[in-house]
This record gives sequence, structure tokens and C-alpha cells, in this order.
Amino acid sequence: MWRDLLPIGRNQATHGYRRYAWTPADADCRAWFRAQAETRGLAYEEDRNGNQWAWLGDPTAGDAVVTGSHLDSVPDGGAFDGPLGVVSSFAALDELRSRGARPAKPLAVVNFGDEEGARFGLACVGSRLAAGQLSAEQAHALRDGDGVSLAQAMERAGYDPEAIGPDPERLARIGAFVELHIEQGRALADGPHPVGVASAIWPHGRWRFDFHGEANHAGTTRLEDRRDPMLTYANTVLAARKKARLAGALATFGKVGVEPNGVNAIASLVRGWLDSRAPDEETLAAVVGEIERAAVERGLRDGVEVKVTRESFTPVVEFAHGLRDELAGLLGGAPVLPTGAGHDAGILSASVPTAMLFVRNPTGVSHSPAETAAEDDCLAGVTALADVLEGLACR
Amino acid sequence: MWRDLLPIGRNQATHGYRRYAWTPADADCRAWFRAQAETRGLAYEEDRNGNQWAWLGDPTAGDAVVTGSHLDSVPDGGAFDGPLGVVSSFAALDELRSRGARPAKPLAVVNFGDEEGARFGLACVGSRLAAGQLSAEQAHALRDGDGVSLAQAMERAGYDPEAIGPDPERLARIGAFVELHIEQGRALADGPHPVGVASAIWPHGRWRFDFHGEANHAGTTRLEDRRDPMLTYANTVLAARKKARLAGALATFGKVGVEPNGVNAIASLVRGWLDSRAPDEETLAAVVGEIERAAVERGLRDGVEVKVTRESFTPVVEFAHGLRDELAGLLGGAPVLPTGAGHDAGILSASVPTAMLFVRNPTGVSHSPAETAAEDDCLAGVTALADVLEGLACR
Repeated sequence: MWRDLLPIGRNQATHGYRRYAWTPADADCRAWFRAQAETRGLAYEEDRNGNQWAWLGDPTAGDAVVTGSHLDSVPDGGAFDGPLGVVSSFAALDELRSRGARPAKPLAVVNFGDEEGARFGLACVGSRLAAGQLSAEQAHALRDGDGVSLAQAMERAGYDPEAIGPDPERLARIGAFVELHIEQGRALADGPHPVGVASAIWPHGRWRFDFHGEANHAGTTRLEDRRDPMLTYANTVLAARKKARLAGALATFGKVGVEPNGVNAIASLVRGWLDSRAPDEETLAAVVGEIERAAVERGLRDGVEVKVTRESFTPVVEFAHGLRDELAGLLGGAPVLPTGAGHDAGILSASVPTAMLFVRNPTGVSHSPAETAAEDDCLAGVTALADVLEGLACR
Repeated sequence: MWRDLLPIGRNQATHGYRRYAWTPADADCRAWFRAQAETRGLAYEEDRNGNQWAWLGDPTAGDAVVTGSHLDSVPDGGAFDGPLGVVSSFAALDELRSRGARPAKPLAVVNFGDEEGARFGLACVGSRLAAGQLSAEQAHALRDGDGVSLAQAMERAGYDPEAIGPDPERLARIGAFVELHIEQGRALADGPHPVGVASAIWPHGRWRFDFHGEANHAGTTRLEDRRDPMLTYANTVLAARKKARLAGALATFGKVGVEPNGVNAIASLVRGWLDSRAPDEETLAAVVGEIERAAVERGLRDGVEVKVTRESFTPVVEFAHGLRDELAGLLGGAPVLPTGAGHDAGILSASVPTAMLFVRNPTGVSHSPAETAAEDDCLAGVTALADVLEGLACR
């Protein structure tokens, strides 16, 4: 099953995957999904938003147990983020069949479209549309880096962009959704458990910090006469790390812009983007507040004005506690851990009881070809997912 | 005199000057220079490298006292950097004539071409060519941002690029060169003297610091699992400031490049350029060495590899001590101060006894429209230059 999927959309130079929504690589992934469904005699369907479903049992019976993930990738992403969940879903159905399990409820595997948002800049487009968290108008307005609209891209891929929109009837069929995903950190790496259960998706946001100083000659301006925003920025980077560490949160400056960005010019403006996430919204607000205060205080020393703008914010997602505890029980006390990353499961959790399983990632690396999982751990993930599906569907 | 020069090459939006070598704005500045020479009955000539000369007395007599500066600008530069020296030179000749001074030696005003290097990336091209510090081949290889070569640009401006090269005979005519320049810092600003004398141009260089970490997901990678080069960079920026302050030197990070430079991605590479200058070469080497050590040490903590590459280095320029002391004496104990910036005077000092005068700049701002000088201080500069020329040429 992996063998046919692995070469699709892999760049020969970087060995990273470039599977972007509605591209030929995406079409190849979709054809692979359909073939997997048909090989198993599962009922295949595409919904109005281009998400793919493979059903075992009557799709319209209700209270279905659905599992799946996505097949698209970030630019030069790894092989596991997304595909591991889809492959494991099909493999878990195979496992249930070989166990002779008799599901009392319909089961399905789903592939949500455009989860990474690599092409149109918005993540989880397929699940957002289905859950009514993104309107057809908003989706039509999305454009890729070449100016191609989402609607044009869908049309070129043979889909009808006029059909997209909320899909409450389809979601109402689902009694529980479970997404298996490779872990994007090392919380499991040093422990004995190959599989964990998600507790929540941390709230997160992006803040732009503008540090306004004064451009001047780097060779002639005395240190005491400078208003150098690079100093304030540098101090803020270190303060962000410290405040996050003390609060058990995450804070990262990974993007910077400098004006005029000349070797012999003191900068007039340094612009840094803060990505911060925390276990709860209060902690997140407190951490970002402390980073901003540290920036402003240092700015006073440096003669630099600091302006902070929140560019985006996503509230906390708490996965259904009952389902979460049930899964942890079915898996014999698997560790329960939060994540900082968004997922289709986070979108669906507003409409459907939802849970996630994480499979151990020894490097912890994510969104990179260095992302990996041991074969034994992948097989343990399949077994765990089969146990969960059996527990939920065969009772 | 100022009135005709001020509008040339001034951008209406920024109010900054854009007088780049061999552009129409540069041609207008050159026409202005020629008109100033002819109005005063001075003998006008252009040398093989496009530098302009206006002679009072016989150019070939030898032991000439020459003054002048440049008329080109950095992008969005101020009105004074360069032009103040040329305007003051003509005004000082006027002053000498009105004093009835009788020079025993020839006097000249010079406008060196392409001092700022804004178009072709190399500073002091006119004086370097004349002094044999830049070969015709090297100059022909220079290209601007649009791919236009220096030779093409000269040709389009009506000059012969095949003629450029060293001009030892012309330099041999010069007994002393004095360049008046607006101060590019605030060393004079808080003192009683409107005019100072340069002691030296500090040695300076550029070093590229490459901080290699590991790209990862900013939302899922635990702080302790990160190899974030932004932290090492930030710590190095602050260390550079501190080491420079303790050593009485200058150190600036004004240019940065980040990969992949994504808001939710821990950087894999941060590249920062250090500009550093110090009173002497030992101090400069020591300061840069300490900054590099601080970077490497912090890199060990962050799991970040630091690589430092020296991209350029200019040794110290000590202006002729006899001439410098003579000027300070002629000006009644004017303060003697070093500068961190390069000048045509620095290039010429290798071939000719050379000195510089600085005129007070209350803001200390340089290479910006905010650069300024009070009218009284400009007039004091003209008087000082006239005193110096009279002292050197009329004895």
C-alpha cells in the first residue's frame, strides 16, 4: 500500500513531498485512495468539497465510526504527516477483517482535501468547508502564489467549485471521528509507549512586532547616539524564549524583515513575527503580554518604538473527554498529551465527537523529509487504531 | 551656489537625494561644477577617470594645494554628504580672493566621481582609479543592479571607459589635499567647536556570521528539542554591542537573512552581517574575535553551528601627522578626531599628504535626509577651509 503512494509528488532533489491541493500530484494521491477503497470492496464517494470517503457498511445508517487524515503536504514535507493516518486507517480495516470483527456500526476512511494549506495559504480547507467554518465565498476568494483561484484550480482538476459548502447531513452520519497522526514532537520519543492519545490542541496565534528605530551610518554613529531596533529585536527573541519556558508554553521568532537591510546601515525597522502557543488561552495571553512588556521596556532603553499587532488567533480545541478517556482505556493506559498543531480533527471536533492518536516520532522533526517513524511503531499504530475502531463500532 | 545644486536628483517623495554615478542627476551635478569653475574664471578639466578639477593658477606647476569632495549620494542621502565639501571649496576660494590673498602655489577644487558606490557597489571609484588602487579591468567588471557595466554607463554618459586607469602624474602635482566633510556622528555636536580635524579613518571590515540550526515546526517542537539559530543570532547581536562598548569600538548587525523565514517554522539558517570598526587593527581583531567566541559558545548551548567569514577588510588610514597638526594649529586648537567612514581622502592619503576637516552635525545623522548642519557652522567651515588654504598656499 505504501509502495504505490511513496513516489507521488516527491521531489528528486530535496526528497521532500510537494503534494499541493488540486495539482497533478494531488490527483495521483486521490487516485491511489480510490484504488485502495475499490480493492477492498469499500463504497467510494466524494463529497461536495472534494473530500474522499470509503465506506464499510451503510453510509446512511448513522452513528458511523470514521477514521482518516489527509494526503497533501507542506512544501518539501515528510512522508508521514497525513499519509500515515490514511494508510493506517485502511490497514486497521484489514486488521478488523482478519480478526473477524463484526461491526455494529458503519465504518469509513476519509481523506480530507487541502489540509496543509500549502497552496492557498489556509489550512484544513476541506474540513472547514464541510463543517461550515469557511464559506463558499471565502473559499472562492483564495488564490495561490500564481494568482490562480481555488475555484479555477478545482475546475482544472475536474471538480465543480460551485458545489462547495457546508455538509451538515454528512457530518450528522458520524458518531465518532478518530484521526491517527505522526507525532510532531518528542513527547513520546523517550517513553515506553509507541502511541498516545491527544488531549487538546493548544490555542495559538501570530503577532507581528514592529521595532522602529533610526537608520544611520554603522561606521560613524557613536553607540550612545544610536536608536538601533536590532538590539531591541534581539533582546525580545531571548525574552520570548525565557517567558515561554517559565510558563510551559511555546514562543518562536522564525520570520524577520529588516529595513534598509544594509551591511553598513543601522536598521530603521526590524519586523519580527512571533508564533506562540500554550496549554490554555490565559497562559497564552499572559506569555505574549510578558514578551510585549519586555520588548517595550528594552525599546525605552534603545530609543526604539515597539508596536505589536495580532495577525491571527485560534482558540483552544479540547477533544471530547469521554471519547478521549475511552480510547486511553482501550489502549491500556496510553499517555494523553496535547499538541500545538492544527488538524482536521480540530475542525471536526466542533461538530462531531473527535479524538486523535499520535504515533511516536524519534526525531520529533515535522514538516521535513527528516520526519520518521519506526516500522514497529507504525504497526503498533495500526493495531491501536484497529482496537479503537473495534471498541467503538463492535459494541 | 547651493540654490542651483539643491534640486538636482532630489526625490519628491522621500526628500532624499539619488545622485548615482553616470546617471542624468550625476550629469546635472557635473554641469553645475563646470559652471561654478567657469563663473570664477578657473581652468576646468576632466581627468581620464571622470574626476573634475577647477584650477586657480598653473595646474602643472606642482606642489598644488587641492580641496574638494564628491557630489554623488547614497540612496535617499542627505544634502551635505559630499556637496558641503565642494560648495565650501568654491566658497573658500571666493573668501581667499576677497581677503586679497596671494597664493604662492596653485590651488584647485576637485569633484571625485562615484564616491558612495551606490550604483556599482564599490566606494571611491574615481579616487581609487586615479591612485592605482583599482585597475581598469576590475572597474570594467563592475555592474549595477540592472546588469549595466561601469563601462557601458560611462559610455552612455559621454565618457570613454577605455581611458580609465592610474593617474600618477596628476597626483604628483598635488602637495596637499584637504577634504572638508560634514561630520557623520555627534563628536562635535556637544562641544564648542564647529570644525574639527581628522586624525585617522578607523580600520573596518565586514564579517558574515552563518548560524546553522534545524528547521522544525514552531507549534509542536518542545523548547528543549530545538536547535533554533535565531536564539544564537539574537545573543550574538547583544554580545557584539557589549564587546564593542567595552573596547571603545563599533559593532553593528544591520543586515539579516533567514531560511525558511516562515512564521510557524523554526529557522534552519540565520545569516547576519557584522560591520565592525575600531581605533586600531589590534582592537578590531580582538573585538571581532570576542564576538565570534561569544557566538560559538552560545551556539554550543543552542545546538547551533556558527561559521564566520570575513567578507572585506580595510586597514587603518592615518592622515599625515604633520599636515594634521598644522591644520589644528591654523584653526586655533580645533579638536582632532577619528572617523569610522571611508572617504576619497583616505584613498589619496596613500599617495599624497592628506587631511580632512569635519563640520558639526547636530543630529549626527548621516546618509539620510535628516543629516544637517547649521548655516553658521557651514560658514565657519568655509572660513576654516580658507584659513587652511591660505596657510598652506600663501606661505
